[in-house]
Amino acid sequence: MNQPGLFITFEGGEGAGKSTVLQAVAEQLQQKGHCVDTTREPGGVALAEKIRYYLLDDQTIEVEARTEALLFAAARRQHLIERILPGLKDGKIVLCDRFVDSSIAYQGAARGIGVEEVRQINDFAIQGRMPDITLLFDLPVEVGQARIHGNARETNRLDDEKVDFHLTVRKAYLELASQNNERYRIINAEAPIRSVIEEVTQVIEDFIVNKNRD
Amino acid sequence: MNQPGLFITFEGGEGAGKSTVLQAVAEQLQQKGHCVDTTREPGGVALAEKIRYYLLDDQTIEVEARTEALLFAAARRQHLIERILPGLKDGKIVLCDRFVDSSIAYQGAARGIGVEEVRQINDFAIQGRMPDITLLFDLPVEVGQARIHGNARETNRLDDEKVDFHLTVRKAYLELASQNNERYRIINAEAPIRSVIEEVTQVIEDFIVNKNRD
Ligand SMILES: Nc1ncnc2c1ncn2[C@@H]1O[C@H](COP(=O)(O)OP(=O)(O)O)[C@@H](O)[C@H]1O
Ligand SMILES: Nc1ncnc2c1ncn2[C@@H]1O[C@H](COP(=O)(O)OP(=O)(O)O)[C@@H](O)[C@H]1O
Ligand SMILES: [Mg+2]
Ligand SMILES: [Mg+2]
Repeated sequence: MNQPGLFITFEGGEGAGKSTVLQAVAEQLQQKGHCVDTTREPGGVALAEKIRYYLLDDQTIEVEARTEALLFAAARRQHLIERILPGLKDGKIVLCDRFVDSSIAYQGAARGIGVEEVRQINDFAIQGRMPDITLLFDLPVEVGQARIHGNARETNRLDDEKVDFHLTVRKAYLELASQNNERYRIINAEAPIRSVIEEVTQVIEDFIVNKNRD
Repeated sequence: MNQPGLFITFEGGEGAGKSTVLQAVAEQLQQKGHCVDTTREPGGVALAEKIRYYLLDDQTIEVEARTEALLFAAARRQHLIERILPGLKDGKIVLCDRFVDSSIAYQGAARGIGVEEVRQINDFAIQGRMPDITLLFDLPVEVGQARIHGNARETNRLDDEKVDFHLTVRKAYLELASQNNERYRIINAEAPIRSVIEEVTQVIEDFIVNKNRD
């Protein structure tokens, strides 16, 4: 593997701890001397943040399911070109909160568009640049929901969807993990947050050691 | 053909007369008692007009070619769902300034992404709802450019592209016309505007007569 940098995506349902753990892990890696960029989807660059607004925050416009999937793919493309690829080229560890697999689980499976169709428009967007590691923060839907609603954390449209929707999301992620076990690591997101952070940092450092050995 | 309404798209290079002729033809059809909706792409509905802004007007953001193609497809999807399909369901003649074939000619061929790949993301967006008639306003690139630059008509990014680009667009359209001759009508856009308007109105009325005969 001669590509510089390391592209790591954080996936899983809402309330799983992705955003919290991502920040903590970034700090640990930086303290150990790694050069890290933290980013999120949809968003990460100006155009994609504008698209994010229509996808998550604007309550005046009803975005149809396939429109939504195309907008996610457009935001992802621009994010990849303007930020992720340049970061990797500079040798950074890029930690990204959600990526392609979120579209497959949410739009493809849970919204019912179809996993293969959503994969296709995302293939158009990323042209094969898949993550080196995808961390799946897995936990029971009720636990994630309780964390969200028990907290003052800002909610968005997706949080309002019914439990069924979230069960489908979880199942879709676990299928993706079993189909792509070379890049997937399933993280038990019910564990105490301190141990989740430790586990994720360890996974990343082990990967780097192995990569440098090749 | 049991679908109500009539979906007609106006295609061709810049300065070919699409927008001018579309308005004139709409008036003629309305005077003859037809119910007409005139619309344009990218745009036609609120979300799509917002996307249009980033595609054509905003000079601060450099939109990458594949991002652009995905945004056009997203805008098209929302336009189809919110406006074109409801109009057709109400039995209207929907006249649309540009549609899928513009993406194939501009993004697929001229920007070099590839005709098949752009077709695929548009198939995702429109799910087979192709126009009943596509009018190709064909004319030499120099003539179209002269019309634009000889007029105070507002220009946008695409007008600034080089002549080569426009030659590729013209060739791509003519290929689409030969591959889809059941829905395509090639209009000689160099003819006097009055006769172009007459020809287009006639094409539409003939189509309606034939349709009602079936
Ligand atoms: N392992 C954990 N144990 C307990 N609470 C957690 C754990 N991970 C995250 N949380 C809390 O759950 C809430 C949601 O976490 P967040 O990082 O926003 O999740 P996500 O980004 O996956 O939606 C936050 O209040 C966070 O502090
Ligand atoms: N057949 C024609 N002959 C001469 N001028 C024309 C003809 N059709 C359009 N024009 C003029 O060319 C210019 C561009 O027309 P427009 O309808 O904006 O083209 P498009 O929408 O295809 O870019 C306008 O000034 C219009 O009046
Ligand atoms: Mg989060
Ligand atoms: Mg026009």
